[in-house]
Amino acid sequence: MLELIADKRDGRAHSPEELRFIARAAAAGSVPDYQLSAWLMAVCCRGMTRPETVELTRAMASSGRRLNLRALRAPKLDKHSTGGVGDGISLALAPLVAEAGLVVPMMSGRGLGHTGGTLDKLEAIRGLRVRLSPAEILPRLRSVGACMFGQTSSLAPADRKLYQLRDATATIQSPPLVVASILSKKLAEDLDALVLDVKVGSGAIFQDQRRAEELARELVGTARGLGLRCVALLTAMEQPLGRYVGNALEIRQAVEILQGDRRSADYLEVLLALGGWMVHLGGKAKSPRDGSRLLEGLIRSGRAYERLRRLVAAQGGDVRQLDDAGRLPRSRARLSVAAPRRGYLSRLDARLVGEAAVRLGAGRQTMEESLDYGAGLVLEKKVGDYVRRGETLATLYGADSARLKQGLERFAGAFSISARAPAARPVVLKTLA
Amino acid sequence: MLELIADKRDGRAHSPEELRFIARAAAAGSVPDYQLSAWLMAVCCRGMTRPETVELTRAMASSGRRLNLRALRAPKLDKHSTGGVGDGISLALAPLVAEAGLVVPMMSGRGLGHTGGTLDKLEAIRGLRVRLSPAEILPRLRSVGACMFGQTSSLAPADRKLYQLRDATATIQSPPLVVASILSKKLAEDLDALVLDVKVGSGAIFQDQRRAEELARELVGTARGLGLRCVALLTAMEQPLGRYVGNALEIRQAVEILQGDRRSADYLEVLLALGGWMVHLGGKAKSPRDGSRLLEGLIRSGRAYERLRRLVAAQGGDVRQLDDAGRLPRSRARLSVAAPRRGYLSRLDARLVGEAAVRLGAGRQTMEESLDYGAGLVLEKKVGDYVRRGETLATLYGADSARLKQGLERFAGAFSISARAPAARPVVLKTLA
Repeated sequence: MLELIADKRDGRAHSPEELRFIARAAAAGSVPDYQLSAWLMAVCCRGMTRPETVELTRAMASSGRRLNLRALRAPKLDKHSTGGVGDGISLALAPLVAEAGLVVPMMSGRGLGHTGGTLDKLEAIRGLRVRLSPAEILPRLRSVGACMFGQTSSLAPADRKLYQLRDATATIQSPPLVVASILSKKLAEDLDALVLDVKVGSGAIFQDQRRAEELARELVGTARGLGLRCVALLTAMEQPLGRYVGNALEIRQAVEILQGDRRSADYLEVLLALGGWMVHLGGKAKSPRDGSRLLEGLIRSGRAYERLRRLVAAQGGDVRQLDDAGRLPRSRARLSVAAPRRGYLSRLDARLVGEAAVRLGAGRQTMEESLDYGAGLVLEKKVGDYVRRGETLATLYGADSARLKQGLERFAGAFSISARAPAARPVVLKTLA
Repeated sequence: MLELIADKRDGRAHSPEELRFIARAAAAGSVPDYQLSAWLMAVCCRGMTRPETVELTRAMASSGRRLNLRALRAPKLDKHSTGGVGDGISLALAPLVAEAGLVVPMMSGRGLGHTGGTLDKLEAIRGLRVRLSPAEILPRLRSVGACMFGQTSSLAPADRKLYQLRDATATIQSPPLVVASILSKKLAEDLDALVLDVKVGSGAIFQDQRRAEELARELVGTARGLGLRCVALLTAMEQPLGRYVGNALEIRQAVEILQGDRRSADYLEVLLALGGWMVHLGGKAKSPRDGSRLLEGLIRSGRAYERLRRLVAAQGGDVRQLDDAGRLPRSRARLSVAAPRRGYLSRLDARLVGEAAVRLGAGRQTMEESLDYGAGLVLEKKVGDYVRRGETLATLYGADSARLKQGLERFAGAFSISARAPAARPVVLKTLA
């Protein structure tokens, strides 16, 4: 290991055998943490070549068990988002795309900092289980076509170990390490194709489109090097996606969208863009656009919502909470924020709204904190909307007035109102196909 | 700590407060090893500014106790060598310079790889103790003027911790870390001045004079930033220094030199050059050259050898082993290597000779191995000497014939004999004053 650290320190490229050694050692715990972390920092400072990233990803995917989905005949696809605020798209996307005839084994994570996590949102539904073993995942994929679960110790264990160390050693952002972490988990899912949602803006990892695009290219190129069909969409994360931020609130968002509500236009646009590509890559539509149209039909017919109910039921969740939003958790205290003057909402900063949600109790600053599933924000106005003075901009939900006060402190600085309408901005910024 | 790692990863400079935090955390064990090692690798990749190196050194020196030598009126000086083969100069230098009226608190290390360590050589003398507490060091400095001891857990504990991690994470060679490690220990010794012996050549850390000079400049500049008078000599380490390589053998070398033997001309030259500077910096001679002459007189008069006897006795060593070399440990098996043809010895590779000594049992590859104090080589010929065919070049000592065979394998490739005399090369290559 010492020689491998020295090689990377001096900017040399590792061989496939060396990368397999490192991934196996990380999974088995046979190399001490201080050596792994020195190596991670050397990678962070010196980078990796494309072939190295491909081999590291492959080695990490092979470090534990892999889902074996050969028994399922339909194409297997997944989506991965780099994380944003109000980005509960997976909740609507998995059942929607499954209804189109694809299989969606969706491994998701938890929220940390100002971005939420799909697993946390799912657990806002009473009874719903996300800790599923490979033996529990397969029958659900067979019957429902989609299953949403957390990373287990058996799938890509090298990634779990390296991710923990990266988090503790300021080596999170290194592009080859980000790419290998994301793709190793997807590779362990036995996918045919993958669609990536790389967020750009104040609420995203990258505020800068150029850096987001670099990561997207690296992800797409590495995935192809691994024989995985892959497309990346760069999408806007300047303001939160949709009308809801919070765990139970984003379940409500997904329900409303699949029930045909079209008020959350930006959410719907990203949903149909990602889903359209998945349907196209899965061979169920001639083009991504055709795929999007097919999905719109599945929403209109009510079949997509019905699939969401089946998905939730198959994982033990209480479907009455979907049918009646009043049964979902909602925090006791609430506060409406009124527009201080009339005009156009010209800014609604995603990061600050996300931080407000954390302070309201919807998120966590460290992995040890517990969540208030009923906390969050309902955004009555989005950027470009006209507001009258005193009209409600947003409603904040939290356990008590102290939480509301903390949330308001952040939200108060999150918006601007101007006399002139802001220029319309696209939601899907770029497609790397 | 996470922020400090990220700062260094991005090439930012640390503040003095931040460096004090890191040094204290390393000494106290309050930051996990994997974070320290990620930081060490970031330093290795991004470097440090001179003010950062100065502050890190100061912080490491302050991380534990410091010797308090104010009660001793004479100037306190020490020498540090970057390590070579046959470089047992400290053994002769400490008593010699003490005899000139200086106080020499000499903290030394153990050998690893092809270079020897002063502590190992001292322990070849029966009974001699090098694990001394500050309370044991002070009276010996008062009575003998010199004391040779190992790094204790109380002096510069941050360095002990960081050195162990550097050794295990391929971050040994980073110039600011090397400089801080060397100088923090010297600063904790409460010195007035320091003379550095930076070796250049096959047996040294640096084979290349340019890189050795860079390190020397960094050491001298940082020492001055700390208010410590400091001079560095670049000296040759192409061939071993002197006529003996091995632990007890290098004790014999020091004894012979202080008894007035002038056969080991290169050893004597380096000894007098380093000692001359120490005497000059300590205010006992107008120039380094005057200092060297003063020391030559102390050797001729026998006073220097008498001081060595007092030093050894004060640390519990058996002085009869000094007076009678036959009492020193000597390995049972021996082998003389004869010149395969006549001519001039044109090469005697220090690294290969050092590796031969390790294989004979005089050194260790890992810190866990034990030593054979009586093993090593007696070099009958040095570079430039004329040899007849069949004349002995060197005698190898080891525990058994297996050891001799291993040592011979290395030694056989260590020398060349040519028809023409090689050009004479200087021993002291450069002085950075």
